[in-house]
This record gives sequence, C-alpha cells and structure tokens, in this order.
Amino acid sequence: MRATIHEATAADAEPIGRLLHDFHVEFDEPTPGAAVLGERAGRLIARGEAVFLLAGEDGIAQLRFRASVWTGRQDCTLEDLYVRPAVRGRGIGRAVLDAAIELARTRDAAFMEIAVSDDDTTAVALYERSGFAYHESGEPDAPAYRFYLREL
Amino acid sequence: MRATIHEATAADAEPIGRLLHDFHVEFDEPTPGAAVLGERAGRLIARGEAVFLLAGEDGIAQLRFRASVWTGRQDCTLEDLYVRPAVRGRGIGRAVLDAAIELARTRDAAFMEIAVSDDDTTAVALYERSGFAYHESGEPDAPAYRFYLREL
Repeated sequence: MRATIHEATAADAEPIGRLLHDFHVEFDEPTPGAAVLGERAGRLIARGEAVFLLAGEDGIAQLRFRASVWTGRQDCTLEDLYVRPAVRGRGIGRAVLDAAIELARTRDAAFMEIAVSDDDTTAVALYERSGFAYHESGEPDAPAYRFYLREL
Repeated sequence: MRATIHEATAADAEPIGRLLHDFHVEFDEPTPGAAVLGERAGRLIARGEAVFLLAGEDGIAQLRFRASVWTGRQDCTLEDLYVRPAVRGRGIGRAVLDAAIELARTRDAAFMEIAVSDDDTTAVALYERSGFAYHESGEPDAPAYRFYLREL
C-alpha cells in the first residue's frame, strides 16, 4: 500500500483536529479537544503560519518555516508527526516524512529540525533512517544536540 | 555592572550583523559576513519575523515566535545567544536570557525552546540555572529530548 499525502487547506480543519487530538490522547499530552485544534489549525493554514500534511485520515505532520538570518533561505521545523495505531507498520510515517522533506525543499528550506524524546524509539528509528542526526556530523562520538524546554 | 538590554529595531542592523558574524567566526560556523547578516536581520525585524535583543555591542539574542496549535498561545524559540569573549563572566548572558524570557512572557509565550550542543558547557550551565531542562520534568532518569537536524 502506498499512502497518498496531500497538503491540507483550511477545509481540512476537521480531520486535522481529530488526528491531533487523538495523537495527544494516545501520548497522555494535554489537548483542548478536536474541535478547538481544528479551528486553530484552520486559522494557522489560512494565515500561512503552519503547513499540515495529511495521509487521508490516518497520518499527519505539522511543519513551520522561517527565514534564516544565517542561510538567507528557510529553516523548517517538523513539529508533529503522527500515524494512527491501527495503520502503523505500513510505511505511512515514512511516506509523510518523505513528503515533508520534499515540500520543505520546494520552499527553499536548507535544514529541517525535529525535537524528539529519546524514549520514542519508533520516531527515533524513523528519523535516523531518514538522515537526521542529533550528534554533530552524525558521529556518535561528536557533541550531541539537546533540546531544552522551559515553561514560562 | 548591570547590562542594559534593548529590543533592536532595523536601525540596529549594523551591530547585529557584527555580533552574529563574530559569533560564528568564534565557533567555526559558516557566516556570510557582518554586512549580509545585518541586512537580513534588518529585514526580518521590519517584517516582524524575528526579534533581536542587544546588550550594547557586547551581547545578542535572536528570538522567534509562532502561534501554537496546542496552547492557542505563542511558542518561543531562542535561536542564538552570544556574548563577546572580552566581557564574559559579568552576567551579560544571564541578563540577555532574563530579558528574553521577560519579552516572551509579554508576547504571551507559553514555552521557550533552545537547541544546545552538549559540549557548550557554558551555555548548558546557563540554561540549566535558568530553569530549562532537556529531560522531561527535569528528572535525569526521565526521557531526554534530542534535537535532530538534517540538511536538505
């Protein structure tokens, strides 16, 4: 099976909201509910502030772009990547990630960044297979990039 | 000595360019030169796409904001923080970071994020003293957040 991925428009707010909500429920993270998430996502898409990729109603990625002072091109952050449990193991996550990388290239992104928890072994394996590294130059002996977070 | 920090306008493009350039020269990172960096920074400020804080000509931070689909508030990324070697150890880095946190709060940010290389022990110590954690809940036994990067 080959997943069909498309870039969501504001008209896709409902499936986006459902996927994001189920994502955070599954991982015990806070969620304001599918309806609120869908409304917010629709507004972000309409304003060009976020990009969502959908694999039907089965998978989703959220991307952010910003102009880099360093490269003069774009930096891309992959904020969320989720595939429903019932359809995992069929390559949908990889297909969504590949589509994200392709989209980022068409938008002149020089780098893609992802913050991952090291206990999320499925995600870690996917990103490492796809050429992402958290050690400089990809060498295990090189310095490791940490992602620091602080609530304000 | 207490550092005076201000939010830069496009008129501060020159000192911003010099600080960013010297930052990347010191850490052997690529730089297009102070003039280009200053021009780009000025454009980002004018468009509201980036915020720079300056401690005179001695220190700088670059901040990015984006509306979060999860919180309905802003997420803030601290992209760069630099203090000139000649004036280190005087609390300028801490003062710039404190000012960044204060500014992020006034812009309704719920979280601040920073990617740091673990060999940058000065930065790691500063962020950890300031309440940032790369382990969930700040517990060393908890999962650690990795920052994955991929050139496109």
